[in-house]
Amino acid sequence: MRTQVAIIGAGPSGLLLGQLLHKAGIDNIIIERQSPDYVLGRIRAGILEQTTVDMLHEAGMGHRVQTEGVVHHSIELVFSGVRHAIDVHGLTHGKVVTAYGQTEVTRDLMDARSEAGLSTVYQAANVSVHDFDSQRPKVRYQKDGQDFELECDFIAGCDGFHGVCRASVPEGAITEYEKVYPFGWLGVLADVPPVSPHSIVYGNSERGFSLCSMRSLTRSRYYVQCPLDDKVEAWSDQRFWDELRSRLDPELAERIVTGPTLEKSIAPLRSFVAEPMRFGRMFLAGDAAHIVPPTGAKGLNLAASDVKYLSSAFIEFYAEKSAAGIDTYSQRALARIWKAERFSWWLTSLMHKFPDTGAFGQRMQEAELEYLVNSTAASTVLAENYVGLPLDLGR
Amino acid sequence: MRTQVAIIGAGPSGLLLGQLLHKAGIDNIIIERQSPDYVLGRIRAGILEQTTVDMLHEAGMGHRVQTEGVVHHSIELVFSGVRHAIDVHGLTHGKVVTAYGQTEVTRDLMDARSEAGLSTVYQAANVSVHDFDSQRPKVRYQKDGQDFELECDFIAGCDGFHGVCRASVPEGAITEYEKVYPFGWLGVLADVPPVSPHSIVYGNSERGFSLCSMRSLTRSRYYVQCPLDDKVEAWSDQRFWDELRSRLDPELAERIVTGPTLEKSIAPLRSFVAEPMRFGRMFLAGDAAHIVPPTGAKGLNLAASDVKYLSSAFIEFYAEKSAAGIDTYSQRALARIWKAERFSWWLTSLMHKFPDTGAFGQRMQEAELEYLVNSTAASTVLAENYVGLPLDLGR
Repeated sequence: MRTQVAIIGAGPSGLLLGQLLHKAGIDNIIIERQSPDYVLGRIRAGILEQTTVDMLHEAGMGHRVQTEGVVHHSIELVFSGVRHAIDVHGLTHGKVVTAYGQTEVTRDLMDARSEAGLSTVYQAANVSVHDFDSQRPKVRYQKDGQDFELECDFIAGCDGFHGVCRASVPEGAITEYEKVYPFGWLGVLADVPPVSPHSIVYGNSERGFSLCSMRSLTRSRYYVQCPLDDKVEAWSDQRFWDELRSRLDPELAERIVTGPTLEKSIAPLRSFVAEPMRFGRMFLAGDAAHIVPPTGAKGLNLAASDVKYLSSAFIEFYAEKSAAGIDTYSQRALARIWKAERFSWWLTSLMHKFPDTGAFGQRMQEAELEYLVNSTAASTVLAENYVGLPLDLGR
Repeated sequence: MRTQVAIIGAGPSGLLLGQLLHKAGIDNIIIERQSPDYVLGRIRAGILEQTTVDMLHEAGMGHRVQTEGVVHHSIELVFSGVRHAIDVHGLTHGKVVTAYGQTEVTRDLMDARSEAGLSTVYQAANVSVHDFDSQRPKVRYQKDGQDFELECDFIAGCDGFHGVCRASVPEGAITEYEKVYPFGWLGVLADVPPVSPHSIVYGNSERGFSLCSMRSLTRSRYYVQCPLDDKVEAWSDQRFWDELRSRLDPELAERIVTGPTLEKSIAPLRSFVAEPMRFGRMFLAGDAAHIVPPTGAKGLNLAASDVKYLSSAFIEFYAEKSAAGIDTYSQRALARIWKAERFSWWLTSLMHKFPDTGAFGQRMQEAELEYLVNSTAASTVLAENYVGLPLDLGR
């Protein structure tokens, strides 16, 4: 079996890459360890930068995000019990973000891939990558008890943080940077109208961080910071709603529509970057190479910009016989990744209560937030990062 | 003995307050524990915000700072071995800072006070403050073995971090916020031309922070971050110059003119705020109420803005029989103080190597610096804080 680009992982990175390559006439096969239902069941981010929306259009699937996505012109910050709106649209000369669940993105991409009749191998067992330091990389896996080998020109590692691609890089060829945060996010999903349908609300309080987000105009996603060792079972719906309300301003707290939660889980927060992102003929993209804490919603958007750089590189390689794109992929992607890592780390640091925050630290957060909402320059810093820095940052 | 305002402390805050009150016809006496030479011997900051320079003019002593001060239009940042200039003047619509040593400010103020024939009691022993919760506060002290009591309308506590005024506030009436940083600054003074006469250079390197500052065009002030338990004796001049050079970009490192050091000392870094700043008829100003780490040079400037608010409050009280100014002093002063504390803490956090910085933290600093020098909004955040936020911030 042979293809031009073997893509490991059928999450949004792998699917989007496959679609863009297909549009450019580049043959690709996706190998995925899980089933389609499992992939669709993962509940993740839901705020898309314009660049990400543009890529969905480019991949030919802009219709649903266009009609069902909810455009946000602002972001709201609650601190010291008062809510402030940052006019993201005005501060960035008209840029916006779009609320549209990652699950929906994945579903759109899956549908498009099926329609185009492209190959995805789901439930592939024991996937392994080989010979990516040569001209003829290979991917081996088992499916229904049978062994398969896929020969290719390139391997795209879109297989997430725990994937096989990064793990297959020889020690010493990769440097990993990591920060694990000393708290988690307790998140719930509920079929109630979002309290703030036209902007995400980020809350700083002495009780900890809170977030009012959404998947659609009828499905809300809310979070509160909690200890990492908390058990979901200890959080009744009532306790969750009470805690969320206590961390918001009174007006918003009163407006929240509660309801039975469809899902309740505790997620850890991590910052992680692996350098470089290219190893011979294998390239990492998305969570396989980097993780951000969810604060600021950069994870999916960074995966999309990686895919943008990588698809352009492959297209350049096949169309123009030029290796320039693949040679600079790692550097271009990392320039944007580090800045998004910085933003996510900063917003996480600004909004959460840390074990060592203390009274001085709490006042520093409040002073920074107070400054942020009153200085045009500081508001613009938040806004221009929230909508997404330009794709071409150089280095 | 009686006066309208008894000022405790003859540092720049006390002297400036005395001068502004005198100009407004308000009688004041300064009580100082040390001798004039001791006060002048304290080597401190040397970067004045325009607001501070304006106040020196207002106090009638703008001549020397005008002719001898060196105006800085920019600030320079070194990181990853490369130097970048931030156009502070351009980004703030024409604002600048002025390099002029605190010692010179103090000397100018002392001279003016002498010329005006105003009373300063130097080397006052066992200074104590009394009855500031009544209409008739008193200051007691000993001078040349004799006991004195000074009756007044108000007490201004300009007596620094270790002064008697804050220490005399009853427990429970004051809240203190503090952060002590896990490193010090080793500073030297040398009669050599500053390597960067027209801007201060702040350096971030894996070896730690460095700073190239100046007192005048012939006197330089340089610093390197060092462990708090380092001994000055362990730092030969040669070792200092070598270490400083290793933390700068090659071009600047080569240009540094070295020479024998006139002074070499290690200073700790601390953030501290006491709230409120008014207790009945006693008011704290400057270091008596708050300390910033020297990064960003806000200490003297914050003292000056406190004095601006406080002198206006007293003038309003005597001229208009209105207590509005003294009633809002604490709130007005603290609004600006917290923002300057935030700036100093942020710049300190951004530029220094902390015990827990690690590889990820170092990359976060570099990513933030990289973003800072490339984003107009982020550069403006640095610039507008460096030149000083407006005096009227409200709250």
